[in-house]
Amino acid sequence: MPSEKPILYSYFRSSCSWRVRIALALKGISYDLVPVNLIKDGGQQFSAEFKALNPMQQVPALKIDGITLSQSLAIINYLEETHPNPRLLPQDPKKRAQVRMIADHIVSGIQPLQNLSVLKQMGEKKMEWAQNCIASGFQALEQILQHTAGRYCVGDEVSMADLCLAPQVANAERFKVDMGPYPTITRINKALLELEAFKISHPSRQPDTPAELRA
Amino acid sequence: MPSEKPILYSYFRSSCSWRVRIALALKGISYDLVPVNLIKDGGQQFSAEFKALNPMQQVPALKIDGITLSQSLAIINYLEETHPNPRLLPQDPKKRAQVRMIADHIVSGIQPLQNLSVLKQMGEKKMEWAQNCIASGFQALEQILQHTAGRYCVGDEVSMADLCLAPQVANAERFKVDMGPYPTITRINKALLELEAFKISHPSRQPDTPAELRA
Repeated sequence: MPSEKPILYSYFRSSCSWRVRIALALKGISYDLVPVNLIKDGGQQFSAEFKALNPMQQVPALKIDGITLSQSLAIINYLEETHPNPRLLPQDPKKRAQVRMIADHIVSGIQPLQNLSVLKQMGEKKMEWAQNCIASGFQALEQILQHTAGRYCVGDEVSMADLCLAPQVANAERFKVDMGPYPTITRINKALLELEAFKISHPSRQPDTPAELRA
Repeated sequence: MPSEKPILYSYFRSSCSWRVRIALALKGISYDLVPVNLIKDGGQQFSAEFKALNPMQQVPALKIDGITLSQSLAIINYLEETHPNPRLLPQDPKKRAQVRMIADHIVSGIQPLQNLSVLKQMGEKKMEWAQNCIASGFQALEQILQHTAGRYCVGDEVSMADLCLAPQVANAERFKVDMGPYPTITRINKALLELEAFKISHPSRQPDTPAELRA
């Protein structure tokens, strides 16, 4: 039986979905994309149909090899183990730990606090809340990167940390965070956005990107 | 040069610290513990001394093999790679992905939203906010576990997912979440708390546990 093409459930603007789109692009895995609009109809992720697919009611979700996975880093780790080239984790365990530390800092320490579902409950304070969460996380990140970075987050190879960095910077820009205090983050982000895999997976170039936001 | 004993910076009640204490106990790694009181003096994690050690100003942090790591799952993954026995990830890539999905769901999807730093900003609504975050995350988790669980979260071997589950259930109990709707979570948690590594690492048995909370 030929293996079926993976299906990615994605929203153009979801930073967690973008992380997975970058991994799929870097590893040259072709896939079908099913857009899930997190705003329309009160959020299509809450439909009974999507809940049956992913009880967490979030994107991304990836149907692959007969299973459905969710949580962006779990998906990326699965892709890393099943499609090891190009690798997204360095060989040295200490450098791998640095990559994971940076990725987890973004994925657990910054993004969840400025997630759509949290912001909804913040009312008027929404913008200020998001700015504070991101700025506070970026202050720590900037310091860490000064020890770990080469061209990218850890040395000169693109890693899982970079897959988390660019989408988080995009969120920061959306929430008008002053990026002045974060020259290392800004430099790395610029280098990443020059890479083809980051370009084709960009929120401005998705099938569900509204016309007015298209690149 | 003999390798120095690892130093764990930990707070008895921090669920993220407990995850790492369980991993160290399971793998039989002896360590020195330095308590960091997240409440006292406005939070000792904000001291200049601790910030120099961990710019994220959070526990846990682990000094090991000449580096300082933070982020609980990054630390646990490093321990897994450098001390592979007993393993905390199954061999099968699909099962590994399930373990990571459950761990990330707790670590990124539940815990950050009921973290001390978020709750501080919620004022009177603190308790209700924490209960809602945990209940909503547990509803999804209960459904997922019905597909993956054996005696523990994924099959019958203790995994990284279990290291996240028990501390999150402890948080749920602290915030008086009704556990009635989550029989699978409750059953697995009970099985985990019978294991020696979960017992000796428990918040009620730490050097910094206040006398009135000691087991």
